[in-house]
Amino acid sequence: MKIDVLSLFPKIVEGPLSDSILNKAINRDLLEVEITNFRDYSTNKHHNVDDTIYGGGAGMLLQPQPIVDAFDATQLKAKENNLPSGRVILTDPAGKKFDQNVAKELAQEEHLTFICGHYEGYDERIKEIVTDEYSIGDFVLTGGELPSLVMIDAISRFIPGILGNDESASGDTFSNGLLEYPQYTRPADFRGQKVPDVLMSGNHQKIADWRLKESLRKTYLKRPELINYDKLSKNAKKLLAEVKIEEEK
Amino acid sequence: MKIDVLSLFPKIVEGPLSDSILNKAINRDLLEVEITNFRDYSTNKHHNVDDTIYGGGAGMLLQPQPIVDAFDATQLKAKENNLPSGRVILTDPAGKKFDQNVAKELAQEEHLTFICGHYEGYDERIKEIVTDEYSIGDFVLTGGELPSLVMIDAISRFIPGILGNDESASGDTFSNGLLEYPQYTRPADFRGQKVPDVLMSGNHQKIADWRLKESLRKTYLKRPELINYDKLSKNAKKLLAEVKIEEEK
Repeated sequence: MKIDVLSLFPKIVEGPLSDSILNKAINRDLLEVEITNFRDYSTNKHHNVDDTIYGGGAGMLLQPQPIVDAFDATQLKAKENNLPSGRVILTDPAGKKFDQNVAKELAQEEHLTFICGHYEGYDERIKEIVTDEYSIGDFVLTGGELPSLVMIDAISRFIPGILGNDESASGDTFSNGLLEYPQYTRPADFRGQKVPDVLMSGNHQKIADWRLKESLRKTYLKRPELINYDKLSKNAKKLLAEVKIEEEK
Repeated sequence: MKIDVLSLFPKIVEGPLSDSILNKAINRDLLEVEITNFRDYSTNKHHNVDDTIYGGGAGMLLQPQPIVDAFDATQLKAKENNLPSGRVILTDPAGKKFDQNVAKELAQEEHLTFICGHYEGYDERIKEIVTDEYSIGDFVLTGGELPSLVMIDAISRFIPGILGNDESASGDTFSNGLLEYPQYTRPADFRGQKVPDVLMSGNHQKIADWRLKESLRKTYLKRPELINYDKLSKNAKKLLAEVKIEEEK
């Protein structure tokens, strides 16, 4: 997958790409991320990219020209490399909610472009080149770099081969609709806190039941709206009934 | 405000702190962010921080010892600097939803600690030191670094003096419960797309009405659940009625 990122702050984007799993994916040619600083495309002699707001108001807005020209340059390069024009994503708190299903869907694309807004906002007319507006949540950030990175990370986990174990993304929270059960590793006794006996019993069926039950418990207590009762197995329904009785006490 | 970040991937965290507004805040002593790599606290001779999962399963889990020991070291340092122990935040998809109100509330704190999970997950027992679990959205990320940075960015915007203009955070989307109206800057005509005439009219009342109406329109079309009808002014109710008629056509 090729990802173009249009940003005024390449260092913000580069940091997270230089370490951990995204970096491994890039080194193994599973992912190519190219950052274009649209300040380089400003036709203004001082390379300004923002200006005051029509109608008045505090702060400055990003102008359309540098962003649209930088985008045209990345599109030309994509075409030369036989890549499709691809979806063009703007992160905005007013956008559609980005979630695990959107991540999975976008992971099927060959080419994505992220436009990172900054400062107080951007000129509405940049939306001419945008195909999708997404929001990662109901909060306001200084720029589009962090939400773009969040989306790139979530999307990348669905590209085959990126995670060490292909099973990993499908075993996560949300993939079966439930929150993940509690997990434990060594030591068996950490400063008086012990690992539940069942996990050391070697009884695979009991362990599987315990995990399903604790997944159901966590989801029931923290995010009950995620439980789709009709889709639960007979065993899961029984375990959920037990959880409800235990938690009422 | 002092923020401790416990992370195995300091470079991921450093990148975004080295540029833009967070960096300005750090340089102006409004914010201090200290990153502690908990691998340095591993008592294992190979400095391992993870191990296999009790009860079986793919992948590795972060062990409690390096994280808890690193945390103890940051707490000791905080105490020496007369800082309170502070809230200790774990980012987890099962946590409470992080939003603009949480950001504002956390901005009142003197000291925050973020624990960044990674790999397949962490040992449940690290929750002994955690005061708050937050989720930024219904998606799964490779690690806790990006969601921690998102939270730090959203929180920092509420620390007085961090934004260039103290008005800026309160004028944002969500601060008045509505999505932000479209904004425009130079040029007045960008490749045939023109700035709405009213914004260049100089008539402040007309501009204010246009902006309120377009805020209402955007919110009505994209996030109608955000509109709290009872809290709207008489003028806003009238403009919303106009929007509804116009959008029905």
